Amino acid sequence: MLLEAIYHRPNDCWAYGYDDQTVHLRIRTKRDDVLKVNVLFGDKCKPWGDMATENMEILASDEMYDYWQAAVRPPYGRLAYGFILTKGNDQIWYTEKGFHSDSPKEHLGLFEFPYLHPIDIHKPPVWVKDAVFYQIFPDRFANGDCSNDPQGTQVWGGQPEYYNFFGGDLQGVMEHLDYLTELGINVIYFTPLFEAPSNHKYDTRDYLKIDPHFGSLETLKSLVQVCHGQGIRVILDGVFNHCGVTFPYFQDVVEKGKDSKYYDWFHINEWPLQVTDGIPTYKTFAFEQTMPKLNTAHPEVRDYFINVGRYWIEEADVDGWRLDVANEADHTFWRAFRKAVKELKPDAYILGEVWHDGMKWLQGDQFDGVMNYPVAQAILDFIVFEHHDAFEFAAKIGRYLARYPQQVNESCFIHLDTHDTVRLLTLCGDDKRKMKLATAFQFTFVGAPSIYYGNEVGLAGQFDPDNRRCMIWESEKQDRELFSFYQKLILIRKEHPALSSGSFRTLWAEKGSSLLAYERHYGEDHVVVIMNVSPVPLAAEFPFLSGEWCDAMSGEMETRPAGENQGELMPYEFRILYKKSVTKL
Amino acid sequence: MLLEAIYHRPNDCWAYGYDDQTVHLRIRTKRDDVLKVNVLFGDKCKPWGDMATENMEILASDEMYDYWQAAVRPPYGRLAYGFILTKGNDQIWYTEKGFHSDSPKEHLGLFEFPYLHPIDIHKPPVWVKDAVFYQIFPDRFANGDCSNDPQGTQVWGGQPEYYNFFGGDLQGVMEHLDYLTELGINVIYFTPLFEAPSNHKYDTRDYLKIDPHFGSLETLKSLVQVCHGQGIRVILDGVFNHCGVTFPYFQDVVEKGKDSKYYDWFHINEWPLQVTDGIPTYKTFAFEQTMPKLNTAHPEVRDYFINVGRYWIEEADVDGWRLDVANEADHTFWRAFRKAVKELKPDAYILGEVWHDGMKWLQGDQFDGVMNYPVAQAILDFIVFEHHDAFEFAAKIGRYLARYPQQVNESCFIHLDTHDTVRLLTLCGDDKRKMKLATAFQFTFVGAPSIYYGNEVGLAGQFDPDNRRCMIWESEKQDRELFSFYQKLILIRKEHPALSSGSFRTLWAEKGSSLLAYERHYGEDHVVVIMNVSPVPLAAEFPFLSGEWCDAMSGEMETRPAGENQGELMPYEFRILYKKSVTKL
Repeated sequence: MLLEAIYHRPNDCWAYGYDDQTVHLRIRTKRDDVLKVNVLFGDKCKPWGDMATENMEILASDEMYDYWQAAVRPPYGRLAYGFILTKGNDQIWYTEKGFHSDSPKEHLGLFEFPYLHPIDIHKPPVWVKDAVFYQIFPDRFANGDCSNDPQGTQVWGGQPEYYNFFGGDLQGVMEHLDYLTELGINVIYFTPLFEAPSNHKYDTRDYLKIDPHFGSLETLKSLVQVCHGQGIRVILDGVFNHCGVTFPYFQDVVEKGKDSKYYDWFHINEWPLQVTDGIPTYKTFAFEQTMPKLNTAHPEVRDYFINVGRYWIEEADVDGWRLDVANEADHTFWRAFRKAVKELKPDAYILGEVWHDGMKWLQGDQFDGVMNYPVAQAILDFIVFEHHDAFEFAAKIGRYLARYPQQVNESCFIHLDTHDTVRLLTLCGDDKRKMKLATAFQFTFVGAPSIYYGNEVGLAGQFDPDNRRCMIWESEKQDRELFSFYQKLILIRKEHPALSSGSFRTLWAEKGSSLLAYERHYGEDHVVVIMNVSPVPLAAEFPFLSGEWCDAMSGEMETRPAGENQGELMPYEFRILYKKSVTKL
Repeated sequence: MLLEAIYHRPNDCWAYGYDDQTVHLRIRTKRDDVLKVNVLFGDKCKPWGDMATENMEILASDEMYDYWQAAVRPPYGRLAYGFILTKGNDQIWYTEKGFHSDSPKEHLGLFEFPYLHPIDIHKPPVWVKDAVFYQIFPDRFANGDCSNDPQGTQVWGGQPEYYNFFGGDLQGVMEHLDYLTELGINVIYFTPLFEAPSNHKYDTRDYLKIDPHFGSLETLKSLVQVCHGQGIRVILDGVFNHCGVTFPYFQDVVEKGKDSKYYDWFHINEWPLQVTDGIPTYKTFAFEQTMPKLNTAHPEVRDYFINVGRYWIEEADVDGWRLDVANEADHTFWRAFRKAVKELKPDAYILGEVWHDGMKWLQGDQFDGVMNYPVAQAILDFIVFEHHDAFEFAAKIGRYLARYPQQVNESCFIHLDTHDTVRLLTLCGDDKRKMKLATAFQFTFVGAPSIYYGNEVGLAGQFDPDNRRCMIWESEKQDRELFSFYQKLILIRKEHPALSSGSFRTLWAEKGSSLLAYERHYGEDHVVVIMNVSPVPLAAEFPFLSGEWCDAMSGEMETRPAGENQGELMPYEFRILYKKSVTKL
């Protein structure tokens, strides 16, 4: 047994409250090194003989490690525990004191999860795991009101440039709600709506005003109301790490320098405000002089942006916030922000833009979820770029699943592209088979999928500004076959609790192979996905394929006699199979 | 290189802000496996060529691992980084994406510490690392006012029992401040002072009232004021996990049951309130029916105890709180508690009673430090019980140092005994040599030492109630030699910034040996401690002993020619040697 590989610490993803009665415990061992892990647990104030044991199961594996998990119920809130690792005749105890060959005989020295308090449990809104997000870049989605078009608005469908406008607005969204309903999405994520000079509006001028080119508070209120009536939630993009250079308080500093009463709302390194060799004398997003960094540690700034966070919920009843560059604002600010927002709307979703390991924000006191960039990148690397084999991909996915608590994984935002990246179809070299394959994984994985507007009708695009093309509304130019495909996937996700709430387990992911199979499982709902991530047909024996399955895409039943497990998949083909059964593979 | 042993995650003890400019990065490798570790770091928005490297040094080692640390300064607040591990010709890169044989070529995929915000840094009060605590159990320290003695008060010096009283009070402490000043301590930690039926007062009846047998608000105010005048701070014991059964709000529930408006201030499992087979129908501390657990998640309860936390600072100007059974109250409560207390007194010390790994409370948003039970146990196991050799001891100490940020280690509370344990002298089998040796380690280790009242004059005692004997005030019964010893150690600690603020490094800790040597280092101050933890004289070659040293205990200088490193130590002897020098061993 490789003891050096074993890891546990009673926090983060390793020991956390899952629900009001349940603690999830995890431990890491070297991959394929340990045969069995049990956890001994109980109340430290009861006699030693009252301790119980629970089997741990492999939750996920990566290239180097297996991650084991058990769900235990502390009988009186307090939880003391230790692990028993078995490999052949080798049995090792692991407690807070280290490794031992003998069983402990008392509670002292065990790990402790001292008390399971419901208030400390990370509880994302329950609706999020059933969400299908649709990301709208408002200037480019639909122009419903020509009277509010910016000066020099281009003809719809023209070439997007860094600084041009196409007149999209909230009224345009309103007019296309039927389209979104037909598609089946249930949450709109708007990139920024507040007044700002740019077309993307990440350089906010007025956080309390809808950009007049998009509409008004009234337009947003109506839109949200109608959306709610149709079962669609709306979340807004909050850019609170930095403002735009036209933000009046920053302008006050520009004008008055040190005499401005707002000078410490920002991070001024030295006076005067200027840019030398590309480096501003004040802190900014990146070194972007038009985006001064806000001093969110300042109580006035904190209160100001907490008020913004509450204002749009109070006024327009929006359902949450996607927080831009969230990892560069301070934790203290986010704790206060969460508290204020949740007081007002307990099931508001707080989603952080964090490209890396987000554990520090996902303890229950800051964000409900993060945009899962590592998972997105892994999907692209495997399916779109074909950089990896199925083994490597499954290993990455395993690592990412193991590093967050279960409820965090379920409430992360799973995108494949956004306004910040090349569009999916373009990444796929316009190969729709690959695009569908990547999307099929996205919709059958853990976490809430997000569609970047227009992907569903074949909108393509290179990096910014090309990835922000106008939405295609002429139905003859829309790829309706693709649209039906997205519709179907959304429907499948909605119909299968296994996809939103179920366990994830890799069934087949061999080195050197491009065949992947995995299962999702929840109660009686049981889904298996198999895919061929290669340009050639591949046949394989899948030991789990016999029996009666329904193909979720075609709706057809297929029955294989016991022992007949042959499956063949065309290039970039996938199958989503399900059965209603409690049988575990 | 054993890759499975390598660990880093950008949080907790592995990546944290140390001061407003500095981030500490740590990485774990298998012990003695890796020759050199460097960290590549820089701003992700600057060109790749601007990345810098920094050597990492071994901060500590335990039986299985080395822990490396580097202090880096993010040039613009943002920090991207990766590790370069070298063993012979073997060079491995470690980034958020895993292990690579080639150098990364871009920031994407590196680890990130996204932004160093001063407000997020764990900043314990600066005075704590210079503190020498003195723990007073008020009923047993000194009776200064016989008029407030409880009924049936025993004669001073009698046999302590679970339920008897000796009349100690705050006036008694006041009258012996000269004694404490002579000893040299600079913080008094009082076990509970608030009104409660027991002699220990962990079963609070009234959180806003000094127990009349101890005095009054006025007595405490005067005492704190006089203490402050003498450079002594005062911290109180806050028992907020549970109250006493006589707490009026619990009595209200006892009387009115579900009709009590306080019924959800507690955790009632079922009605009526009763105890069956030793298990109360309401939650308690352990299963102790006289100590009902408080529902600190309830907003009214939270506000009530936050008010208690502020009241004693506002009214009596106390300097902080030691929090009883702190790990069993909820984190949300402690975050709010900290905020409220620090608003009032930013340098108040918040000390949690946490017997296990305390990392979850030590992120900067809850406690400043914890009572370091694991370190206390390690010292006892090595020096008092002689269960371990020097290697095992150094390994444990190394593990404990590596698992907290540096400022946490410096601000932990280092005790060897308390009112909850057997007294040190008794643990030592009345062998003063061992007692002195353990205390010498305590005073030369990282963290603020605490003396349990009376230890310094030879007070002994088995488990509760014997560990709560009356303080010895007749000077002929006091062990004055021991007193002088404590005085000297306190003085040495005060005179050597290396002891309060310096690095800790083991110099000598061989398997099978009872000889231990370690150094503390801060700026020009350099202290080396050598000790013989055995009943026989031991001689050894200490490669670092040549040159000119001053013996801190005797004040004598000693000079050894280069190459003459022989040292001999009598049974249980120790030496504290220092030189003023910037030379590192």
